[in-house]
Amino acid sequence: MTEPKQTERRTKTALLNDVYQAALVLGNELGYNRITFSEISKRANVTRATLYRHWQSPFGLLYAAVQYYSESHPNQVQPSDFEQQSLRQNLITALMRFESSFRSVPNPDSFMAYFVSEIVKDVPENREILAELKTTNRYYMNLIIDVALAKQELQQRPSDFLLNLPMETLIYQMGVNHQRISEKLVTMIVDQMLIPTFESQAK
Amino acid sequence: MTEPKQTERRTKTALLNDVYQAALVLGNELGYNRITFSEISKRANVTRATLYRHWQSPFGLLYAAVQYYSESHPNQVQPSDFEQQSLRQNLITALMRFESSFRSVPNPDSFMAYFVSEIVKDVPENREILAELKTTNRYYMNLIIDVALAKQELQQRPSDFLLNLPMETLIYQMGVNHQRISEKLVTMIVDQMLIPTFESQAK
Repeated sequence: MTEPKQTERRTKTALLNDVYQAALVLGNELGYNRITFSEISKRANVTRATLYRHWQSPFGLLYAAVQYYSESHPNQVQPSDFEQQSLRQNLITALMRFESSFRSVPNPDSFMAYFVSEIVKDVPENREILAELKTTNRYYMNLIIDVALAKQELQQRPSDFLLNLPMETLIYQMGVNHQRISEKLVTMIVDQMLIPTFESQAK
Repeated sequence: MTEPKQTERRTKTALLNDVYQAALVLGNELGYNRITFSEISKRANVTRATLYRHWQSPFGLLYAAVQYYSESHPNQVQPSDFEQQSLRQNLITALMRFESSFRSVPNPDSFMAYFVSEIVKDVPENREILAELKTTNRYYMNLIIDVALAKQELQQRPSDFLLNLPMETLIYQMGVNHQRISEKLVTMIVDQMLIPTFESQAK
C-alpha cells in the first residue's frame, strides 16, 4: 500500500474554499477593486485557467465568495420564521437578513461600494448576478406576502416593481448614500415606503 | 490703432463653452469613462492647469457640462407651472424634467451608466455633486408639496427620506436597471410609490 501523496488533489469543496478565502483576504488587503485573477491564483495555489473556467471577472468570483459564506451563515432566515409575525416585522427581518448576508465579508461597507460600482456595468455576468439577487429578494418577499394575504393583512399581491423595491432601496442606500444598514434605516424603509405602498394596492 | 490679436484671450463664457463641448464630444467618441484632462485640454485648446484649477476629475467636468447645457434648455420647468396641476401631474412633470436634463448629452443612456459608476465613489467632489442633486430635487419637490398642501391634497409635508425618493429611484432605474426614463416608468413610480407614501404621512 502507498501513502497518500502530499500533492494530492484538493476536493472541489476544499479548492473553492481556498479560492474564496484568498479572494476575500486579498480584497480586504488591497481594496476589492484592485484584485486580479493572477493574485488570487497565486494566493490560493490554483491555475488562472481554473479561475477563468468558473468566473468571467474577479467581481463575479468575489460575489460568489460572499454568497458562499452567507449561505453557510447560521442566522439564515427560515420560511417558517415568517408565519407567526406581522407583515411589518417580517419585512424588517427580511431586510436585516440582506445586511447579515454581507457580514461574512471582512469590510462590508467598502464591499458594498465596490459591489455597486461593478454591478452598474452592463455585462452578461452582472445581468446574471442582478437577476439572481432579484430572484432571492422576490422569493423572500413572496413568502412574506403569502403569510400577509392568508392573515388578510393585505388584500392583493403587490406589483413586481414594488416587490423589487426593498432590495433596490438597500443597494442604493449602501452603495450611493454610503449608509450602513441599521435597524433604524430598515424600520424607516418599511414604515414610510413598503407598508404604505403595499397597502395601497388593496384599493 | 492696432488690429485685435488673433490669439486674443477667449472670454470666460467662450472658454467654458469650448471645454464643455470638447468633453461631451470626446465622451461620446471614446466612452465617457475613458476621457482624460489631457485629451480635453488638447481638444479645447486650454492648458491642463486651467482644467485642474476648476475640476477635481474628468467626471466633475462632464457633470458640470451636462448641468451647463441643461440650464440653457428651453424646456426648463418654471415654479408657476406647478400651480394649476394636481399633485400627481406635477410629480410626473418633475420626474420627466430630470430625464430632459440629460437630453443635451450625446448618448444619455451610456452617460447615466457612467454617472452612477462614478457617483458611488466616496470622494469629496462626488459628495458635493450628490448634495447638489439632492438640493435641486428637494427644491422642486418642495414647490410641488407647497401647492398640494395649499390645495389640501396633502395634510402634511413628507419626510426628507420620501422627498429624496424620486431622484434616487430614477438614478437606480437608469444606472443599475438600465431602464430608459419614459412616461410609462415615471407614471408607475408616481402612482405606485410616491402618491401612496406621500398620502400615508397624513395619518
